[in-house]
Amino acid sequence: MAKEKKLVESITSMEEDFAQWYTDVVKKAELIDYSSVKGCMIIKPAGYAIWENIQHELDRRFKESGVQNVYLPMFIPESLLNKEKDHVEGFAPEVAWVTHGGQNELQERLCVRPTSETLFCDFYKNDIHSYRDLPKIYNQWCSVVRWEKETRPFLRSREFLWQEGHTAHATAEEAVERTELILNIYADFCEEVLAMPVIRGQKTEKEKFAGAKATYAIEAMMHDGKALQAGTSHNFGDGFAKAFEIQYTDKNNQLQYVHQTSWGVSTRLIGGLIMVHGDDSGLVLPPAIAPVQVMIVPIQQQKEQVMNQAVQLLDTLKDTFRVRLDDSDKSPGWKFAEQEMRGIPVRIELGPKDIEKGQCVLVRRDTREKIQVSLDEVSAKLAQLLDTIQKEMFERAKAHRDAHISDAHNYEEFKQALEQKPGFIRGMWCGDRACEEKIKEETTATSRCMPFEQEQISGVCVCCGKPARKLVFWGKAY
Amino acid sequence: MAKEKKLVESITSMEEDFAQWYTDVVKKAELIDYSSVKGCMIIKPAGYAIWENIQHELDRRFKESGVQNVYLPMFIPESLLNKEKDHVEGFAPEVAWVTHGGQNELQERLCVRPTSETLFCDFYKNDIHSYRDLPKIYNQWCSVVRWEKETRPFLRSREFLWQEGHTAHATAEEAVERTELILNIYADFCEEVLAMPVIRGQKTEKEKFAGAKATYAIEAMMHDGKALQAGTSHNFGDGFAKAFEIQYTDKNNQLQYVHQTSWGVSTRLIGGLIMVHGDDSGLVLPPAIAPVQVMIVPIQQQKEQVMNQAVQLLDTLKDTFRVRLDDSDKSPGWKFAEQEMRGIPVRIELGPKDIEKGQCVLVRRDTREKIQVSLDEVSAKLAQLLDTIQKEMFERAKAHRDAHISDAHNYEEFKQALEQKPGFIRGMWCGDRACEEKIKEETTATSRCMPFEQEQISGVCVCCGKPARKLVFWGKAY
Repeated sequence: MAKEKKLVESITSMEEDFAQWYTDVVKKAELIDYSSVKGCMIIKPAGYAIWENIQHELDRRFKESGVQNVYLPMFIPESLLNKEKDHVEGFAPEVAWVTHGGQNELQERLCVRPTSETLFCDFYKNDIHSYRDLPKIYNQWCSVVRWEKETRPFLRSREFLWQEGHTAHATAEEAVERTELILNIYADFCEEVLAMPVIRGQKTEKEKFAGAKATYAIEAMMHDGKALQAGTSHNFGDGFAKAFEIQYTDKNNQLQYVHQTSWGVSTRLIGGLIMVHGDDSGLVLPPAIAPVQVMIVPIQQQKEQVMNQAVQLLDTLKDTFRVRLDDSDKSPGWKFAEQEMRGIPVRIELGPKDIEKGQCVLVRRDTREKIQVSLDEVSAKLAQLLDTIQKEMFERAKAHRDAHISDAHNYEEFKQALEQKPGFIRGMWCGDRACEEKIKEETTATSRCMPFEQEQISGVCVCCGKPARKLVFWGKAY
Repeated sequence: MAKEKKLVESITSMEEDFAQWYTDVVKKAELIDYSSVKGCMIIKPAGYAIWENIQHELDRRFKESGVQNVYLPMFIPESLLNKEKDHVEGFAPEVAWVTHGGQNELQERLCVRPTSETLFCDFYKNDIHSYRDLPKIYNQWCSVVRWEKETRPFLRSREFLWQEGHTAHATAEEAVERTELILNIYADFCEEVLAMPVIRGQKTEKEKFAGAKATYAIEAMMHDGKALQAGTSHNFGDGFAKAFEIQYTDKNNQLQYVHQTSWGVSTRLIGGLIMVHGDDSGLVLPPAIAPVQVMIVPIQQQKEQVMNQAVQLLDTLKDTFRVRLDDSDKSPGWKFAEQEMRGIPVRIELGPKDIEKGQCVLVRRDTREKIQVSLDEVSAKLAQLLDTIQKEMFERAKAHRDAHISDAHNYEEFKQALEQKPGFIRGMWCGDRACEEKIKEETTATSRCMPFEQEQISGVCVCCGKPARKLVFWGKAY
């Protein structure tokens, strides 16, 4: 990649301070603003449009797999939250409580949903009677609240937007299938649309969801080598069904418990996008998710022929691409910097000299490569170029990730790798929670997942040296 | 319309008890379920799919008019809610208060947004500096909470889904234009898509939104003659801007206050759809909004040739229509009743005798008319039929409404009309709030709106007999 010209001087460089760079980008690319409510953010049009594209594409994939959307209340009575023991222990410490409605104190406190397993169970208990009522494959797009102490835009905020799927099945096998199917939808979506490579795997007992039998997750690596849990899919078995008495009559007229799953991704994905692809000039968006894919910037726009040609170009492209024309009275240099800050994948420069030659110049956001293209061919070339950018952004992110995966065969190697090279560490694990806890305490790294593609890179646990049972990806995480 | 055969016996008839009929329909058509949270409902797949179609179509119309979507926090600090005097008086008595986050009591109570004027103002105050930052034409799709005492599914619930637009403009004229433009989008949408005729007009001072300078509304008439306020659009002038200090520097470098609007429609529209079009067999959905437009019901489906032909028909239609094939093991009669209860606009009956003749039978949900159609022509005929149904449903609803509008020239006529013929009453008004209050107290009717199309049907106020200033639509309302 050519050395970057820093057209925008106002953001901190990634090398200098990655956390500050991130904060600068979310603000200067106008994705979010802070609000008067501590820990809650305002998602501005440029940020919300990314979320709309994520919703649109994921929702399409969900529905193809049989998902139906519903909406459940945002409040959970305290007694309902308390019904599943592990679940309440996981969530009760961080919920917001509504105690008054209008002028009156409520008889029972209501929490603002941190997640809706308990509500869906309460609903399914009444809605499921016979095997004919199964499966239920429901999802909702909504906001949830978790009273976090430390917050960061998109990555961890007290309120965030997400989707939560909640399903009920006749058999344990069907629930496992659904858990896997959804994890694969998430992974494919991240890789194909967000150009964000992910590791697919299972969480350890320690890291699994409160109340789940098994949690599957996709883990992505950010530019600074830290992990981001990008999506999770939980298999509950019949645990919640037993706590909530969700039973159905099977074909032999026997009462059976249902088997359940839940799964979610959130606006956190936008944080991932920023930290996987961004650079010192700001955001870099993959074409498949970018709300604006192409910005036309006229040069010497006061010349009538330039604006005419620019408008004509916009007309040619607008049915095929998400394209805009920047006809504001700012200078071209300013417009370039703005387009780069916002991560728009391609800009088209069009000036009097280009028009003389019957051409325009396509400039890639990701590599800054400039490509002269005949005006007759611009639509075809642009389509190819957006495809190329999408593919190369994925390949580059994957190469970066793979270059930041180390294998550790013992605890010394593990600690050395963590210090010297931020990223994932592949290390065997004995299966003992004590080793996970020791590693976390001493290094702040956590077990990210046990990848589905297992390998035996050593016979012993990377921490205690006892016989190993699983290959684990370890890392520091957001 | 042919006399209805009651295929489903389990719902109360409209004539007998309209309120019970409504409750039966929302439950039996599987639009909603009640939840453990008093006054909050669960929107089931059949109900939520209607809302998704409403969102999709309105959002498209909004965006064509320059609207951008955003997301603001669901919580409002008490001090922020208190900033605009009229507004807080209107909403504070009916909000839900969050007092604890996790284990700790909050320093300041937060209310769950009943509407977000105050949050948008707080945001705009920081986001608007120069005339270049205007206009802001933002909208959000979210849920809001109002702690109502009496609730009814879709019509009035403690939590409901809606969109709320909030705009800021450089001039008073632009704000008026936007208020009108949105009201017209709402009205056109209701008439074109929901087949629900509406009266467009302005609310009186008494009925306007808390904090607004003027409120415009669309009023629809339900089958029982009661009014439903289906959407509102508010012009705030610079009232909120002054309370929140939202100023911009104009082209002459002078500080100016912005002028604002807000506007919203909610899941209440679904209640309107039910009560405008429904009948004693259940829901009747206009084709333009129906999640399923056509249900194919095979007769004697155990015969292989029937199912083959049914699947082939589904294939022929599925790219053009929202069509399903009911291949469950229920009887055709049961399937007919179910399709009618759910309001699916057309069912296609297809049995061995039809196949012999190379035809199928289209049955309209709204009129129950049966139309034999050659299998070669089914796609073209179906498209025409859905158009016809959409148009005729609107015409029928309009004729019903117009037949339930009475003119009253004095208070005797007014009271008589109210007693004898449920519906809207057109009556002149002196402009005095006391007359509105008297009418409300003595008859429970309220001023619905002052229609934009004014007429002078008498020289004096229908209540007090003093000189009249405005024609008003009066009525009992949901």
